[in-house]
Amino acid sequence: MTLVTLPGQEWVDAVGPIDGLDLAVWDLDGPPDRADEVRVVVPPYLGGGRRVPALRHTPGVDLVQLLTAGYEDVQAALPFKVRLANAAGVHDASTAELAVALTLAALRDLPAFVDAQRQERWLPPAFHDSLADRRVLVLGYGSIGRAIAARLLPFEVQVTAVASTARQGDELVDAVHGVDQLAQLLPAHDVVIVVVPLNARTAGLVDDGFLAAMPDRALLVNVARGGVVDTAALVRHAAAGRIRAALDVTEPEPLPPGHPLWTAPGVVLTPHVGGASTAFMPRATRLLREQLSAYAAGRPLRNLVT
Amino acid sequence: MTLVTLPGQEWVDAVGPIDGLDLAVWDLDGPPDRADEVRVVVPPYLGGGRRVPALRHTPGVDLVQLLTAGYEDVQAALPFKVRLANAAGVHDASTAELAVALTLAALRDLPAFVDAQRQERWLPPAFHDSLADRRVLVLGYGSIGRAIAARLLPFEVQVTAVASTARQGDELVDAVHGVDQLAQLLPAHDVVIVVVPLNARTAGLVDDGFLAAMPDRALLVNVARGGVVDTAALVRHAAAGRIRAALDVTEPEPLPPGHPLWTAPGVVLTPHVGGASTAFMPRATRLLREQLSAYAAGRPLRNLVT
Repeated sequence: MTLVTLPGQEWVDAVGPIDGLDLAVWDLDGPPDRADEVRVVVPPYLGGGRRVPALRHTPGVDLVQLLTAGYEDVQAALPFKVRLANAAGVHDASTAELAVALTLAALRDLPAFVDAQRQERWLPPAFHDSLADRRVLVLGYGSIGRAIAARLLPFEVQVTAVASTARQGDELVDAVHGVDQLAQLLPAHDVVIVVVPLNARTAGLVDDGFLAAMPDRALLVNVARGGVVDTAALVRHAAAGRIRAALDVTEPEPLPPGHPLWTAPGVVLTPHVGGASTAFMPRATRLLREQLSAYAAGRPLRNLVT
Repeated sequence: MTLVTLPGQEWVDAVGPIDGLDLAVWDLDGPPDRADEVRVVVPPYLGGGRRVPALRHTPGVDLVQLLTAGYEDVQAALPFKVRLANAAGVHDASTAELAVALTLAALRDLPAFVDAQRQERWLPPAFHDSLADRRVLVLGYGSIGRAIAARLLPFEVQVTAVASTARQGDELVDAVHGVDQLAQLLPAHDVVIVVVPLNARTAGLVDDGFLAAMPDRALLVNVARGGVVDTAALVRHAAAGRIRAALDVTEPEPLPPGHPLWTAPGVVLTPHVGGASTAFMPRATRLLREQLSAYAAGRPLRNLVT
């Protein structure tokens, strides 16, 4: 029996028995039982990067399976070289759904209705922006970008996909445009949803020039990472009433009290909860079951990042 | 030339010229110019029922084309018998989109994030309900119900359609269940979206027994009419933490300050804005153009209700 550790009994129960594997609980806080026998470790969902130095207790590990899509912090903190797999795909449904929720909430002015409810005021009839008829640019067209496009299309919108390089379309969009076409595309879109990974090419991508190219009253939605957006530039464009924004991620994060983003007009904020929904556990469980079954059977693994 | 009145110059501009018709502006406030020549009247979007007695000035009218789906108040106020057409279909996109917006906002706890933003507080990590994996019952499966189902399906949900009588399914759902099956269906659904017309059979349909049959923490979404729900029963179930609700319509309406619905736990309120979005004007314009063109050419009319 190959020893595999999962970060809690709920994970052992959810994954269920797998032929050839012995599933135990280890939260990477101190050494596990039978440390020398551990071959596969699934670190806790939150704080994985801080905890992986505990792998020094388990020198026989040859696979670390993460529950997050991001892996850079874990990779940097690993005490020895080991195969690392991320959880790409597991957060697609949850994050795509929050992107659409933020888009709808911002366009239909739901925050103003929440404020009015707190004051027990029934606002007079007024027309608000619909999502219908909007031209939406999805910036970042990996699995989450596609999940966003799939959810948007029945809303009678026009969806434009943009990725790092231009390529052919798929069953959802006619074409995938390259980022080099952004300057031409931005003026023709009412909503931009950002879902690119944060890296050297995307840090600060949504800068003053990007925002200036968006039409008046256009909506920026960010469910990627705060560092993709130049926060100071966004605050300026929002304060001027030029650009609206709905942000699940900010730079800095958490956003400190007194930061101008909190009160910038037309800005809606959620505290990085894109992946944090009940959609996570069943999808993570399916990934673990498939991946650990493949490991036990000696079949190729998915999502290997090193 | 046949004289047609529209409720504002913006409508004349949007509809554009139609062969054989002379389009004029009349808001039904006092008599129009050339009153005896008017053959078709489109009353204003809001307050149509209050204003149609002005049709006594235009005895030659043989078609009243409304911009609303509801027509009962206008029908009751007409000073003489005349053909009446409503605007069924025009509000589908807007209302369906608000239903999904309210569902997402309530499940993902967006009102709590709005409150936290006002206090400049970044809430700690926590898991919120996803729409993904929810079992959603759409109660009322006409054109808006189908528009809701189409928008929900890409969210990885299970959609159950219920209408006044059972019938075969369509390209969206396997079957349409009859309301007589509600008692069996309700316990198996996490979200109920109400979009039935208000009539003698639906008034108070969502009563104490209906709410009691919904599972703990289930979400009721109402984008139909307030009178479909027994407000007092809903307040009791919400206060007990049993049922959550997202309501665009209430009974009474507008909801007066101090009404317990404003502060009932887990209740989100919007002030009857389902149809009031930018999706309205282009769809209403298309309907008017088609309908008036048909009238001018002597072709059959759509949406006749009398």
